[in-house]
Amino acid sequence: MKKIAVLGSTGSIGTQTLEVVRANSDIKVVSLAAGSNIQLLEKQIREFKPVIACVFNEEKAKELKERVADLSVKIVSGMDGLVETAIVEEAEIVVTAVVGMIGIRPTIAAMEAGKDIALANKETLVTAGHIIMPLSKSKQVKILPVDSEHSAIFQCLNGEDKREIQRILLTASGGPFRGKTREEMRSIRVEDALKHPNWAMGRKITIDSSTMVNKGLEVMEAKWLFGVEFEDVEVVVQPQSIIHSMVEFSDGAVMAQMGTPDMKLPIQYALYYPHRRHLDGKRLDFSALSQITFEAPDMVNFPGLRLAYEVGKTGGSAPTVFNAANEMAVSLFLNKKIGYLDITDIIEQAVEEITLIKNPTLKEILDTEQATYEFIKGRWSD
Amino acid sequence: MKKIAVLGSTGSIGTQTLEVVRANSDIKVVSLAAGSNIQLLEKQIREFKPVIACVFNEEKAKELKERVADLSVKIVSGMDGLVETAIVEEAEIVVTAVVGMIGIRPTIAAMEAGKDIALANKETLVTAGHIIMPLSKSKQVKILPVDSEHSAIFQCLNGEDKREIQRILLTASGGPFRGKTREEMRSIRVEDALKHPNWAMGRKITIDSSTMVNKGLEVMEAKWLFGVEFEDVEVVVQPQSIIHSMVEFSDGAVMAQMGTPDMKLPIQYALYYPHRRHLDGKRLDFSALSQITFEAPDMVNFPGLRLAYEVGKTGGSAPTVFNAANEMAVSLFLNKKIGYLDITDIIEQAVEEITLIKNPTLKEILDTEQATYEFIKGRWSD
Repeated sequence: MKKIAVLGSTGSIGTQTLEVVRANSDIKVVSLAAGSNIQLLEKQIREFKPVIACVFNEEKAKELKERVADLSVKIVSGMDGLVETAIVEEAEIVVTAVVGMIGIRPTIAAMEAGKDIALANKETLVTAGHIIMPLSKSKQVKILPVDSEHSAIFQCLNGEDKREIQRILLTASGGPFRGKTREEMRSIRVEDALKHPNWAMGRKITIDSSTMVNKGLEVMEAKWLFGVEFEDVEVVVQPQSIIHSMVEFSDGAVMAQMGTPDMKLPIQYALYYPHRRHLDGKRLDFSALSQITFEAPDMVNFPGLRLAYEVGKTGGSAPTVFNAANEMAVSLFLNKKIGYLDITDIIEQAVEEITLIKNPTLKEILDTEQATYEFIKGRWSD
Repeated sequence: MKKIAVLGSTGSIGTQTLEVVRANSDIKVVSLAAGSNIQLLEKQIREFKPVIACVFNEEKAKELKERVADLSVKIVSGMDGLVETAIVEEAEIVVTAVVGMIGIRPTIAAMEAGKDIALANKETLVTAGHIIMPLSKSKQVKILPVDSEHSAIFQCLNGEDKREIQRILLTASGGPFRGKTREEMRSIRVEDALKHPNWAMGRKITIDSSTMVNKGLEVMEAKWLFGVEFEDVEVVVQPQSIIHSMVEFSDGAVMAQMGTPDMKLPIQYALYYPHRRHLDGKRLDFSALSQITFEAPDMVNFPGLRLAYEVGKTGGSAPTVFNAANEMAVSLFLNKKIGYLDITDIIEQAVEEITLIKNPTLKEILDTEQATYEFIKGRWSD
């Protein structure tokens, strides 16, 4: 019996993780954590019977405690609760599917407790890759990517020698605004940006896909996960989202992983790695598919991707500024406080303004996050 | 130092194998075998200094012996000589790049002598897969595919559990006559059929590609190599020859191997498996590539592929008849004795006429080959 903790269980990745659990009889959920959606969390607790569950929001946690008073589950809250949920003794793998930098602390705590990480929280590696990767080595815990692109790369590397990697070819759909100029994107509304052509995802990541900031974060994640340089990570636009990513090796061979867009595949792959097992779902039909097309990414009209490479190469606290600025800007955009193009403008200005720390500690990373929020609040919010 | 025997050293795969040897300092050629091209073989002997070399043609062997009298190399000839070259004590891997059923005996002899096989001779598995695969198991020798498609599948299976294979997706360029009807193919001349859109290969295999008989032989090879059923091998037409083949697993993931059309890649992969190492050559440029298209194979206008599935499922000596009939028919076509469409007509008639043997011995396989030749000679040659 494989025992897992699911942090962010009411979100898109969290609920799909639970679908994978439902389909497999040899896996058990021992802890759950959510932000504030206690309606869904209660259902999950009644179905999966974890030993502990966290609601980040303290008020909501109290409410849930009363609702599940008939059960033996322990209800906790806040960051301490989240960490407690991550390090619960029974868990072997912690699925980190919380959104935002909130995911870093429980991830580090879980690793220190010797647990493997099924990583769905991008911010962890983007902002703290220099802390996480050495920790994974010293604690001998696995970082198993759940992102479809990184899972694809991980699958391509199965059985291969990492030293023979020549290039990582990270595929991108290009988002709903591929082919548009900055000028044409000026009037984009929230509703337009929330329509992703291929994947059904959360709101924040859907906006990030449309600006290609998401791809930029993925480039940084890939650099850390696979131990390569930024020069060795190339973004290839592949609008049909059939190829989830590729790796070119020293002999010129390119290995690719393809599939229908179904996040349950990378989730299940991470949970059972290196084993595969049956997964229900649509299969690729190449005759019906007809074609796969490729383009170079447009770094001029999508400056988010260009900026990501820049902050990635700068390193230190710069990726934290990039990520925090984007988080806040997207939130402002979703609340209709700023225009679409302001998102990347805000990131660029924040990266220029916030003081760079070369090799930040976890505290300095979190302080940089706050400093970035303050900087943006001061200029764009009211 | 890796020591190899190269059978068929003056052919297309043979010369490219020697190019791979030339580029690597830790590999040595200990034996060479050719059919009759002693000019080239002499050069190869002087460059690679094998301990033994075979010329299948006895007269030519005598001639070569005189030419290389200044060297210590042993010159042998005929089938006995070919077998001697294959089992030479020093060889660890035998590259079987001879064309035709002539390759079966030396391959079996090499396996019995405990040598790994870098298999470039299709006929071996097509006609004697039921003998070769159990022998590979009992002798614990590896069968390393050199064909680009089978190498691609082999690369996709690296690190994977074969039991989780759902489908093998064998890609095909479709050849130069893709999209044509039988009627339109009636007047095809030798010169037309010798123009392959993507790969530079020998004459016989180029014709086989144009009729898709080659893909049929590959389907049979894949069945044996990867231990799957014919229902699990699907041909996907991919005219750009970028994807060399794919494997779909039980979870729906499709792993693909892509590359520029360069046979040195699968050759080197077989020789150094499971390791990769640098190989000079063009790399795939996805931005320049623009697109990869897919089609279902046309089994009506290309009956060679349909027949291959049929004889494959029938099993026994039927694939031998298919292969021998094709060999002779292609030879007749290349000598302008028959028309293009006669190639597959002859195969179909031979398969109908020649007596089926259910579980043929090596002798029965070779007798079936002769019977097929006699049958065709009696009807179409003069």
